[in-house]
Amino acid sequence: MEMNIALLPGDGIGPEVIAQAVKVVNAIGKKFGHKITFKEGLVGACAIDATGDPYPDSTHEICAASDAVLFGAIGDPKYDNDPKAKVRPEQGLLRMRQKLGLFANVRPTFTFPSLVDKSPLKLDRVDGVDLVFFRELTGGIYFGEPRGRNEQGTKAFDTNIYSKEEIVRLARMGFEAAQKRRKLLTCVDKANVMATSRLWRETVQELAPEYPDVKVEYEFVDAVAMRLIQWPKAYDVLITENLFGDILTDEASVISGSMGLMPSASLGSKVKLFEPIHGSYPQAAGKDIANPLGTVLSASMMFDYAFGLFEEAKLISDVVNLSLAEGIVTEDIAEGGKAYKTSEVGDWLAAKIL
Amino acid sequence: MEMNIALLPGDGIGPEVIAQAVKVVNAIGKKFGHKITFKEGLVGACAIDATGDPYPDSTHEICAASDAVLFGAIGDPKYDNDPKAKVRPEQGLLRMRQKLGLFANVRPTFTFPSLVDKSPLKLDRVDGVDLVFFRELTGGIYFGEPRGRNEQGTKAFDTNIYSKEEIVRLARMGFEAAQKRRKLLTCVDKANVMATSRLWRETVQELAPEYPDVKVEYEFVDAVAMRLIQWPKAYDVLITENLFGDILTDEASVISGSMGLMPSASLGSKVKLFEPIHGSYPQAAGKDIANPLGTVLSASMMFDYAFGLFEEAKLISDVVNLSLAEGIVTEDIAEGGKAYKTSEVGDWLAAKIL
Ligand SMILES: CC(C)[C@H](C(=O)O)[C@@H](O)C(=O)O
Ligand SMILES: CC(C)[C@H](C(=O)O)[C@@H](O)C(=O)O
Repeated sequence: MEMNIALLPGDGIGPEVIAQAVKVVNAIGKKFGHKITFKEGLVGACAIDATGDPYPDSTHEICAASDAVLFGAIGDPKYDNDPKAKVRPEQGLLRMRQKLGLFANVRPTFTFPSLVDKSPLKLDRVDGVDLVFFRELTGGIYFGEPRGRNEQGTKAFDTNIYSKEEIVRLARMGFEAAQKRRKLLTCVDKANVMATSRLWRETVQELAPEYPDVKVEYEFVDAVAMRLIQWPKAYDVLITENLFGDILTDEASVISGSMGLMPSASLGSKVKLFEPIHGSYPQAAGKDIANPLGTVLSASMMFDYAFGLFEEAKLISDVVNLSLAEGIVTEDIAEGGKAYKTSEVGDWLAAKIL
Repeated sequence: MEMNIALLPGDGIGPEVIAQAVKVVNAIGKKFGHKITFKEGLVGACAIDATGDPYPDSTHEICAASDAVLFGAIGDPKYDNDPKAKVRPEQGLLRMRQKLGLFANVRPTFTFPSLVDKSPLKLDRVDGVDLVFFRELTGGIYFGEPRGRNEQGTKAFDTNIYSKEEIVRLARMGFEAAQKRRKLLTCVDKANVMATSRLWRETVQELAPEYPDVKVEYEFVDAVAMRLIQWPKAYDVLITENLFGDILTDEASVISGSMGLMPSASLGSKVKLFEPIHGSYPQAAGKDIANPLGTVLSASMMFDYAFGLFEEAKLISDVVNLSLAEGIVTEDIAEGGKAYKTSEVGDWLAAKIL
């Protein structure tokens, strides 16, 4: 197969972890006879520094012409504490999601047996957790208008807005995923307070009869924030709006103790995007110590979701499991054993594939 | 001292737990020579059933004329799954908060040594957790206009809105609390996305120099949702908007393993309100098994926050600790020991005070 992959390393440790995914993807290409072409683009703080724009048109063109995007991380602390900054790296991310039509963010949380003792939760709570969030990614309060300030600057406002179609297309993805999994769908909302949430709940209730094999539960976001810690195994597939998804997927990511390893996919249009869930981790940038496994597993998701190549996807996750079993890991999970460099882990994985 | 206390038992287990708090408050009154008068009002589902209104004017009059309100819980499952219901119990709660001007919800999370093993988190993470949220309670997306649907009903919207004054008055409470505690204040927002959050951050930055002894940290809500589980001991006082506070205070409440015991206070005007953080727990209603300690500790907060009577407040929390130490507890925390009835726990506490 021919594959055009856009590479967006981004900021901080992004370039280092993306470099390892490239090694792995190239190894897969070689082994399975795929012709893989990479094109690199700037996004985030590095793009602001170079062009003044966190998501330059040139980057969008590369992404739009690709079959899939592999993305590292964005964010630089120099932009965080300046509430009046006119341009922020995050705007690049948001614009990218919207311009590429990536309306669904798929965030699995699962456990690696060898890492489960790193969880802040007790073993019986996390052992075997396997849930996946479908977070709406191009709507809601992230993009709603009007937003801003009154003239004197003494009042600020944001608008949360959802249309039925936006909810339907995200919810269908959740229902379909549930059908292939444990057949439980949880719709997370705040229908006791928000008008948008009531439309979510109503819309999901209307769709439910089309998926009679899926059990649907409706839970308030505050209750889910509790139950996710109390008993995460209660969940299978969760669907929710953009802002709730932002908070809950991050909360869920620490449950398994394997945050540095969690991949994600953003879907919705021809071009799909894959990225680790961890951030740009600026303190570690350039030190060759960042854990590349989240990005490598995102590449695995890419073969699965973007190209329907399950064997390739499976081989990547198999070698990742092997690296964990053999202790070929970076310092964050080395636990007293030898700590390998980011680049060494990438080399090892690529060699194992070939 | 003369004290007029409004009692709002509400729904589910509300009446049973309030009854125990009344016993305790009466015992305190007797011991310290206070003249305490109770007036009872309807709120929530029971108020809808009786009057069609979840917060009838008659209830508001009782509250407005009181010195403090002791509140149980509201909510009935019969209203939860009907997104089109015209009147919902929660509206009563929201209207009450707004009409009484209760703009600050104070929610401490702390541990009881004898219960800490009930936490879903590992001991080293929770042992000694002691944090308190100041959640803005009468603004934001809970009340912002416009909210609703377009004419065809295919789009829904909510408005998040904050004025500088709303932020200032809540933030000052947080700063002052931090000064009396470990002097760390965390401002929780989503300033990388939301205009309201940028006003929050900017406003808190402007206030900070007035409290030079307090260290101020700014964190995104998604990061806090993670760190609250990873290392809750990192926090002291957290301030945040209404919706983030709803989610995070519930998340925080499960950390200590003592959710049934956590009290809360709602402040902002002459009349202050005190309530346990747990819900109406309809399955347990009428069975005399609900844990009354969250409500009893809310009464302790009442003596402290509403009347400045620290000795009285302290005595209540002391007898609660004694009941835990001696195992005079309800079935939820009895752990194989004898389980006492709700009413028995209340009787025991009142007797200990006298
Ligand atoms: C950086 C930020 C704008 C972004 C978001 O809120 O969506 C991030 O937290 C995420 O979840 O990808
Ligand atoms: C019942 C509901 C409206 C309420 C809220 O969201 O404020 C509750 O969750 C709370 O936190 O007191």
